[in-house]
Amino acid sequence: MGLMTAEQYEESLRKLNLVVYQYGKRLENVVDDPVIRPSMRAVAKTYELAHHPEHADIMTATSHISGNRINRFTHIHQSVDDLVKKSRIGRLLGRETGCCFQRCVGMDALNALSIVTYAIDEKNDTSYYNRFLKYLEYVQANDLTCDGAMTDAKGDRSLPPSRQPDPDAYLHVVRETTDGIVVRGAKAHQTGAVNSHEIIVLPTLSMRAEDSAYAVSFALPSDAEGIVYIIGRQSCDTRKLEEGTLDRGNVFFGGHEALVVFEDVFVPWERVFLFGEHEFTGLLVESFAAYHRQSYACKVGVGDVLIGAAQTVAEYNGIEKAAHIRDKIVEMNHLNETLYCGCIACASQGHREAGGTYLVDILLANVHKHNITRFPYEIARIAQDIAGGLMVTLPSEQDLRSPETAKWLQKYLKTRADVPTENRLRILRLIENLTLGTAAVGYLTESLHGAGSPQAQRVMIFREGNLANKIKLAKSLAGIRQKAK
Amino acid sequence: MGLMTAEQYEESLRKLNLVVYQYGKRLENVVDDPVIRPSMRAVAKTYELAHHPEHADIMTATSHISGNRINRFTHIHQSVDDLVKKSRIGRLLGRETGCCFQRCVGMDALNALSIVTYAIDEKNDTSYYNRFLKYLEYVQANDLTCDGAMTDAKGDRSLPPSRQPDPDAYLHVVRETTDGIVVRGAKAHQTGAVNSHEIIVLPTLSMRAEDSAYAVSFALPSDAEGIVYIIGRQSCDTRKLEEGTLDRGNVFFGGHEALVVFEDVFVPWERVFLFGEHEFTGLLVESFAAYHRQSYACKVGVGDVLIGAAQTVAEYNGIEKAAHIRDKIVEMNHLNETLYCGCIACASQGHREAGGTYLVDILLANVHKHNITRFPYEIARIAQDIAGGLMVTLPSEQDLRSPETAKWLQKYLKTRADVPTENRLRILRLIENLTLGTAAVGYLTESLHGAGSPQAQRVMIFREGNLANKIKLAKSLAGIRQKAK
Amino acid sequence: MGLMTAEQYEESLRKLNLVVYQYGKRLENVVDDPVIRPSMRAVAKTYELAHHPEHADIMTATSHISGNRINRFTHIHQSVDDLVKKSRIGRLLGRETGCCFQRCVGMDALNALSIVTYAIDEKNDTSYYNRFLKYLEYVQANDLTCDGAMTDAKGDRSLPPSRQPDPDAYLHVVRETTDGIVVRGAKAHQTGAVNSHEIIVLPTLSMRAEDSAYAVSFALPSDAEGIVYIIGRQSCDTRKLEEGTLDRGNVFFGGHEALVVFEDVFVPWERVFLFGEHEFTGLLVESFAAYHRQSYACKVGVGDVLIGAAQTVAEYNGIEKAAHIRDKIVEMNHLNETLYCGCIACASQGHREAGGTYLVDILLANVHKHNITRFPYEIARIAQDIAGGLMVTLPSEQDLRSPETAKWLQKYLKTRADVPTENRLRILRLIENLTLGTAAVGYLTESLHGAGSPQAQRVMIFREGNLANKIKLAKSLAGIRQKAK
Amino acid sequence: MGLMTAEQYEESLRKLNLVVYQYGKRLENVVDDPVIRPSMRAVAKTYELAHHPEHADIMTATSHISGNRINRFTHIHQSVDDLVKKSRIGRLLGRETGCCFQRCVGMDALNALSIVTYAIDEKNDTSYYNRFLKYLEYVQANDLTCDGAMTDAKGDRSLPPSRQPDPDAYLHVVRETTDGIVVRGAKAHQTGAVNSHEIIVLPTLSMRAEDSAYAVSFALPSDAEGIVYIIGRQSCDTRKLEEGTLDRGNVFFGGHEALVVFEDVFVPWERVFLFGEHEFTGLLVESFAAYHRQSYACKVGVGDVLIGAAQTVAEYNGIEKAAHIRDKIVEMNHLNETLYCGCIACASQGHREAGGTYLVDILLANVHKHNITRFPYEIARIAQDIAGGLMVTLPSEQDLRSPETAKWLQKYLKTRADVPTENRLRILRLIENLTLGTAAVGYLTESLHGAGSPQAQRVMIFREGNLANKIKLAKSLAGIRQKAK
Repeated sequence: MGLMTAEQYEESLRKLNLVVYQYGKRLENVVDDPVIRPSMRAVAKTYELAHHPEHADIMTATSHISGNRINRFTHIHQSVDDLVKKSRIGRLLGRETGCCFQRCVGMDALNALSIVTYAIDEKNDTSYYNRFLKYLEYVQANDLTCDGAMTDAKGDRSLPPSRQPDPDAYLHVVRETTDGIVVRGAKAHQTGAVNSHEIIVLPTLSMRAEDSAYAVSFALPSDAEGIVYIIGRQSCDTRKLEEGTLDRGNVFFGGHEALVVFEDVFVPWERVFLFGEHEFTGLLVESFAAYHRQSYACKVGVGDVLIGAAQTVAEYNGIEKAAHIRDKIVEMNHLNETLYCGCIACASQGHREAGGTYLVDILLANVHKHNITRFPYEIARIAQDIAGGLMVTLPSEQDLRSPETAKWLQKYLKTRADVPTENRLRILRLIENLTLGTAAVGYLTESLHGAGSPQAQRVMIFREGNLANKIKLAKSLAGIRQKAK
Repeated sequence: MGLMTAEQYEESLRKLNLVVYQYGKRLENVVDDPVIRPSMRAVAKTYELAHHPEHADIMTATSHISGNRINRFTHIHQSVDDLVKKSRIGRLLGRETGCCFQRCVGMDALNALSIVTYAIDEKNDTSYYNRFLKYLEYVQANDLTCDGAMTDAKGDRSLPPSRQPDPDAYLHVVRETTDGIVVRGAKAHQTGAVNSHEIIVLPTLSMRAEDSAYAVSFALPSDAEGIVYIIGRQSCDTRKLEEGTLDRGNVFFGGHEALVVFEDVFVPWERVFLFGEHEFTGLLVESFAAYHRQSYACKVGVGDVLIGAAQTVAEYNGIEKAAHIRDKIVEMNHLNETLYCGCIACASQGHREAGGTYLVDILLANVHKHNITRFPYEIARIAQDIAGGLMVTLPSEQDLRSPETAKWLQKYLKTRADVPTENRLRILRLIENLTLGTAAVGYLTESLHGAGSPQAQRVMIFREGNLANKIKLAKSLAGIRQKAK
Repeated sequence: MGLMTAEQYEESLRKLNLVVYQYGKRLENVVDDPVIRPSMRAVAKTYELAHHPEHADIMTATSHISGNRINRFTHIHQSVDDLVKKSRIGRLLGRETGCCFQRCVGMDALNALSIVTYAIDEKNDTSYYNRFLKYLEYVQANDLTCDGAMTDAKGDRSLPPSRQPDPDAYLHVVRETTDGIVVRGAKAHQTGAVNSHEIIVLPTLSMRAEDSAYAVSFALPSDAEGIVYIIGRQSCDTRKLEEGTLDRGNVFFGGHEALVVFEDVFVPWERVFLFGEHEFTGLLVESFAAYHRQSYACKVGVGDVLIGAAQTVAEYNGIEKAAHIRDKIVEMNHLNETLYCGCIACASQGHREAGGTYLVDILLANVHKHNITRFPYEIARIAQDIAGGLMVTLPSEQDLRSPETAKWLQKYLKTRADVPTENRLRILRLIENLTLGTAAVGYLTESLHGAGSPQAQRVMIFREGNLANKIKLAKSLAGIRQKAK
Repeated sequence: MGLMTAEQYEESLRKLNLVVYQYGKRLENVVDDPVIRPSMRAVAKTYELAHHPEHADIMTATSHISGNRINRFTHIHQSVDDLVKKSRIGRLLGRETGCCFQRCVGMDALNALSIVTYAIDEKNDTSYYNRFLKYLEYVQANDLTCDGAMTDAKGDRSLPPSRQPDPDAYLHVVRETTDGIVVRGAKAHQTGAVNSHEIIVLPTLSMRAEDSAYAVSFALPSDAEGIVYIIGRQSCDTRKLEEGTLDRGNVFFGGHEALVVFEDVFVPWERVFLFGEHEFTGLLVESFAAYHRQSYACKVGVGDVLIGAAQTVAEYNGIEKAAHIRDKIVEMNHLNETLYCGCIACASQGHREAGGTYLVDILLANVHKHNITRFPYEIARIAQDIAGGLMVTLPSEQDLRSPETAKWLQKYLKTRADVPTENRLRILRLIENLTLGTAAVGYLTESLHGAGSPQAQRVMIFREGNLANKIKLAKSLAGIRQKAK
């Protein structure tokens, strides 16, 4: 069918029969639910922009299997240039939506599976890779949004999967049939889960032999029988239920996360991509993590929005030329572009894996993500500094509309004569949204923990740091004789 | 009447006839309003602890006018020891409430007026100081909570008060009668306004001769005719309107801010403490600012709560012994105690002003507050790091209570066998509350802007830095001959 | 002649007739001077490695004018790949030498002139570009090292060149003859000046019409008549004059800087590349600055050495497995690789200028350099943390060799049984060298000020930050109606 | 004899018969040695200022044993006020000398012994405390400078004292006689060792029963038979051997460190203060560490000098009014005063120990020192930023004096017309001295490692953080029911 439009995407979601719970109730209509709809709109943007000629170069790609023009979010990277464009797509969509647009995780899962199914076949003479390519063809042909589901419930963090009191703490195969497998467990923190057509499941950590039942990867339609979604709540989530749009901050877009429960769900063999090959789970986790850490390029785009908002409020207040304000804007830009350097560099230094899939530089992708766990917090702090305290003491939109109080708010919240008071309030609510509200979930906390918490990156940076080589350099310059190796 | 109890305090509020608007409507019953009540409870804590023997030493003081035992929040500092206890009272109450307890600002206004009314009289042979002492006696005798109202609406930031298009952008005297004065304007960001018996108005900046109509300070009962309160909304404010308490995070306490409008309000002469003496507004602003910057001692107490919450969640997850977790807890403590050093040091280096009132060291008070604009953000970031992503993806309390979804949440959000799942969720909600929710308003944004935004402190640090003396030291050691002075 | 060897390079320097002063005396023999020789050795490394097959790809390039294989330091970038390799060459040589290898600045000057001479010709129909290409051919054919000399003496910083009390505060044309021009002035901070065959002079700032006499760029042999070099002293410089090598830290390599005075020096027309076209000085300064800010890739290589030294000393002390040590090593690596991301990203996002020369992304190059002004200081601090205090309390090599004291030092400075005490001392001296000694000049202070001080980058980051676009994004998401443009 | 003058102090040192090695040779005349003399001058300042009436209040104290006016450096703290004055004495002398003045460590050793000898007697019915008081009386009466010697050689860091391959890796008792004990070992990093009359030895860590031979504390005259000093070298140490003073930066003062070897040294019983009571070594180490961490108050004074130098060079360059320069000066001051807050706060929150000696708050003293391991590095970085690159490329004083080169340096290093070029160079050399040269050893590396490396403070901050109490607060506010205790 080629590239879907945003409208087609929305319609395609209406056909899904998802089981979704929120605020203690099952949702009748997911697509029009006011809390979820803004997140659907953000995904829709990934469809819409693919039709914009000025973005076509980065939003679309040529499928290496069909040769068709496809949405880049379903593409397997064929070159360093593809990797760089992936970083640019992230920034672009972050700018356009001011939030998480959710679709990168499926792309990352597909690319990791492309590497790993190829590697298993190489070693074991299996046929996972062909199976994967068929699935990929389906995804590309139908321009689907895939959720990439990795994080298990984990139970007691001090025990491995097979020794948990509750065996379901990690998702696992409960039985095997002639047609496929049956799985049970849950995946937490699934961003954009209910906006997805497909859910691709990956193991959450490198498994050992005794944990083989937990070494499983597969794909399912998001409305497969036995899958249940429980929506997480975000800071300020219920403002979307209120009348008016001002207090939302971001008037159009948002995000959502869900706990996804698998209640003995059946997976046919043609959608199983790893089954018991525990020795390849490390590669799968590491490849996916590297790709997904690169994906935090999107936060640079969100940072662009926040910088724009801070500069706007400075202009509204008439202080944009004060040296300290200018300096703070510079600092925000500096930090944000430093983040951009990370996602570009890990792409630029990417390489071709055995099967032809291009992978980012693992060390630099981890370094990039690690800065993402730090700088957005400082950018947010500076934005609040420039915004001023009114950002958190502003009365509600209802007060602004009420005939009793409107006069006072219009009068006393006025700054420059040429700035409508409401505009000032809107931009303050946007900064609140990004630094404390629904978008702060994505811009801050998700920046910390998404694609792995800070310590996960530090472990990788230690492992990839090539200390032996650095020791050699230092000893040589210090005149310390070294043994030949 | 002596020290009020918490219950008496609550009753005393019920007698007030305040005009308060919230969410576009006038409130019938302020004290029992679910959004405001937690902030009332926080103030009530300042009454309650004054009756606890173990806290009596820091919670109460001996009045220098009546000799009676009074609540320290109505006391004029008579020694360095008083100043140090003021820092300790802030930490204590921050710990007990996990939020802003609102009563410090009135104490700071009283102490600043004690210095300035004395100074005006010294120079002008007026009798403000006696008038102030009489007012103080009333406040102490009745153990009142006073709001200290400083920040004006300010309009166009590039223009002084007297040249604003709207003359009311700064609160000012609109006419003088034989009995007193009539004032108009608004004060923004008034923390705890509707929990106060009294409102003490101070000018927001140092006024020049042409702005004399804006050089005015006075006190009024909070329900004086013509005063209107419009409540600001906080991040996650409406969670207090939901059933259940879990999603609030802090189950008992909170804060509120209001825009306070003065619609031609009459002030009798005996409550006017500065009237046109523009040359003393600088001293008043600076003294109040120094005292109030010290008051951010409270954030150290809130930091204690956040550290406790982070350590608890680490224990619940079973990772509290991991070296990187321990190191993060140390860093949180280190930053928090560095803040404590600031509020203790500015008190310890305080001095006696002419009339006998003790004032903190101005440079160090500014340095202290300046760190408050930085460290809580980093402490909050680390707390979120330790908490994990579940903090922002956790379903609602309703989902936890719903028979349909409770089983899954109980099962999949379980960690250590001995930790009730609900406890884990409660502590995560507390961290959310402090870093993104209603308490983040106080712990983060108010830490930035309350008692003056960061740049205000930098201006003072520059002014108080005694560079001339430092230049002399450097030149001397460098062997540069200096002219005798 | 093709690629010179390190030996040929050294011989070529002996043929120069430089006028060099150091410690108040003229040097007879520059090449063998013990203070300067280590810096010559560092430049020699750029010749040596060009002959190593494993480095040939990044050390050499194909001349776009002759088609010959040339040293990359004389190459004009013809692609993004060339730009990326330039960043890699910087890191490589920083690793090999542990200091500044001095030759990048000439490459940057050549590339900037390639852009600017082309641009002038395009507009003015002059023939600077051909003149430049001829000069370039000569440089490439003879594999020369060029100094790029930009920073003027500057006199009173508050006055422009033409209004200085001393007209020579900025280098300028004092007269014009039929054969060329005569110039006077001085260039400060010239790294590697006396190891260069050529000196390429560029204006230090964007000149206005009234400063046209200061708008001049040209190249000269380094021993042209009238050029005088006065060597600057570095921290610990005289350790190179001592017996033994241990206390030097870096046993082989070092750097030097010189003040270069031009006493009415004649420049023939064929070596003049800009003469009075003040309107192009901005472009020249900005292009050179962007290239040269990229060049701080080298500090990543020096960082590699310092990380290696820190890890070595940790192992010597037997504490390398302590969690806090490991974490510090991770942090050093993280910061260092963040720097690497910057120099890779600005190259990867480079573009083709009109004449075919590739230029780095200006914003990202400035962002990169700006991080260079920060992170090496923190890396150095951590290195000192790991090294321990002995780094600065270690007795001299003479004490280690003296029969009277050797026994005590060998005994009491011993750590692990299998680590020779001297090795421990050597690695400590290397860390001292890099963080306090001669190499700290390059790794720290030069990282701050070389290629422009921090504020210079901030000005560029502000200018290149595209705030208008960011404001548009923010307003759109906040629902603020924007005027069509 | 009362308070010595600086001159008397110098004379008293001449009478010592110290065995000192430096640069491989034994020193004939320690007092006049050009490398050591500046450090002697710094100690002399502690004598000189005690005679200045304006400093008498903090420089002197009333002995609690003799009732005489004594130098505060020999005083046992009798009140919180004494503790606060100790912090102020540190800043004062840091300002006056711009370096380490060495005398605090003896004061800290005396105070720690005052607590511990009392505690041992309390428990064991011994008479150490009286013995100590007698010794103290002697020190006070003669106004002696004491070195406090703690850090052992330590050998293999993974083994305790008694299991080291070399038993002397930690100083220990080799035999006991009727008159006293004989000790062997070495103490490293002894600041100011050869300027001291006395050396007080303390164990370097908390000893266990098997390490009892290492549990020993005593005092000796610095020239006791068998004590050998080997001077450590500092960055740029030999500039003090050069003609002229300009290149030293700090023209008058400096520091030195020594390795102190004890070759079977006899200690009479009356000078032994702990002998085998291993269970008190923890208290001794911890008390001394707390006092000595407070002592880093001195760095605030050195920071004052560096701020003054940075402001001076900004004025010399004519850029002191640039907003970014002013902001950097503010930041230096802010960080420096934050450090001041630490040393004041730990003193202000001090308490009385059993015997009457006042001890600082241990947690806050550790927090203070921990900031000292960070902020001076950032202050130094900013100072270098303001100074500009000339600080490290400046030719030598000899070049400035040489008739051949003086004209060029005078001409081209000139800035503002009214600033003598030499003054500019002097102030740049002072900044070099403090950030890279001899004083950087004290201001930076010693700030890291003196009185315990950063990790030592982190261990204490963890231990003193009272997490149990903080957990209780958090649980209470989160509504988690807690078990009664």
